[in-house]
Amino acid sequence: MAIRYPNGKKYTPPTSEVKKRSIKDYSFSNRGKTLEDEIDEANDFYLQQQLAVIHKKPVPIQIVKVEYPSRSAAVIREAYFRTPSTTDYNGIYDGYHIDFDAKETESKTSFPLKNVHPHQVDHMAVVAKQQGICFLLIRFSSIERYFVVPLEMLQNAWGRMLTGGRKSIPLSEFEEQAIEVTPSYGPRIDYLQAVRQILP
Amino acid sequence: MAIRYPNGKKYTPPTSEVKKRSIKDYSFSNRGKTLEDEIDEANDFYLQQQLAVIHKKPVPIQIVKVEYPSRSAAVIREAYFRTPSTTDYNGIYDGYHIDFDAKETESKTSFPLKNVHPHQVDHMAVVAKQQGICFLLIRFSSIERYFVVPLEMLQNAWGRMLTGGRKSIPLSEFEEQAIEVTPSYGPRIDYLQAVRQILP
Repeated sequence: MAIRYPNGKKYTPPTSEVKKRSIKDYSFSNRGKTLEDEIDEANDFYLQQQLAVIHKKPVPIQIVKVEYPSRSAAVIREAYFRTPSTTDYNGIYDGYHIDFDAKETESKTSFPLKNVHPHQVDHMAVVAKQQGICFLLIRFSSIERYFVVPLEMLQNAWGRMLTGGRKSIPLSEFEEQAIEVTPSYGPRIDYLQAVRQILP
Repeated sequence: MAIRYPNGKKYTPPTSEVKKRSIKDYSFSNRGKTLEDEIDEANDFYLQQQLAVIHKKPVPIQIVKVEYPSRSAAVIREAYFRTPSTTDYNGIYDGYHIDFDAKETESKTSFPLKNVHPHQVDHMAVVAKQQGICFLLIRFSSIERYFVVPLEMLQNAWGRMLTGGRKSIPLSEFEEQAIEVTPSYGPRIDYLQAVRQILP
C-alpha cells in the first residue's frame, strides 16, 4: 500500500504504526524485516537489558475529524501525515543523548542524499551543539550491510552536494569513514556497538 | 470536543496536533493558553536562542485505513489513539538528556496522582538510571502556579500512595520540595530556569 505525503512522496506506514508487533525472536536472519523493525528489536533489547532507553517517535499526524461513539474508542476519521521536524529516534544511553534517523537504500554502490531531509540535517546540527550524539543508521538492503554514519560525515557529504558535488555518498566512503554494524545475535542490529565508537 | 481513549479516559487533542500554531508573542498573560501551548512557546524560544532542543512527541496513533486520492494528500480514514508508553517531552539541554511530562490540575490545594500513569513513572525511572533528568511540570491552573517536580519527589509520593497513603500531593509539599516557576517574560514559562536547580 502506497501512501503519499502532501509533497507527493510515497510513504509506507511503519509496521509499529499499523499493527502491534509481536516480534520476540532475535534471530540472525532479517527475514524481510524492515530496518525499522530491526531497530525496534534492538531498542526492546536495550530497554530490557537496561542498556539504553531509545524510542521511535510516533508519526506526526494532523487530526481534523474525530468520532467518539459511546462505549467504544474514539475513531479518527480524517487526518493527514505531517512532515516530521526532527529525526525519528531519540533517547539516552549511559548519560549521552542519542538522536538519529534510519535510512534504507536499494543501491549497491552509494547512498542517495535525497533520502535525507534538510530539516533533519538542521535538527541534528542543533542537537550536536548541545552535545548530543547524532548519526544516521543506513542499511544497504541489497547487500545487507549496515553503517552508523556520524553527523560530521553526513555534513561533509551534504556540503559537497550543496556546492555542486555528487548527490550521493559512495560505498567506499562508508567503508572508510562510517562504522559498520555487522549483524549478530541478540539483537541482530546492535547499533550501539558502533555508536560507542563515536562517543566523545 | 471530548475524545475517549480505549480505556474510556477523555482526551483533548493538543492544539499542535489539530492546527498549526502561529503563536509568536511571548506575552506575560497566559490568555487562556493550555500548558502545552506555554511549553511549546518556551521550547520555541529555547530552540531559537540555541539554549536547548526539546520537542513534544506526536500523539501515538494506530492507523487502520488510509485513502490516497490521486494528486492530493493521503487521508487517514480510520485510526485510533494509542496509550503513550513514554512521557510527552524530551530533548537535550547543555549535554543533559531531558525527559518530562506536563500535567494540569484545577485543584487549589493538591495534585491528584491519578493524573500520572504508572508507565510514565516506570519510563522516567529507567531514563533516570541512564542519567537523564526527569521531572513533571505541573500547573495549578486555578491559582496560576507552576512547579517542576523532580522525579524523586514524585516517586516518594507514588510509593506513599501504593502503600496506602494519600492519593495526591498537597500544595504545601510542592512549596517545600518542588521548584516553583514564576511566570515572566520571554518565554512566560521558563521552566529550564527551574530545571537548572535539579541538575547534578
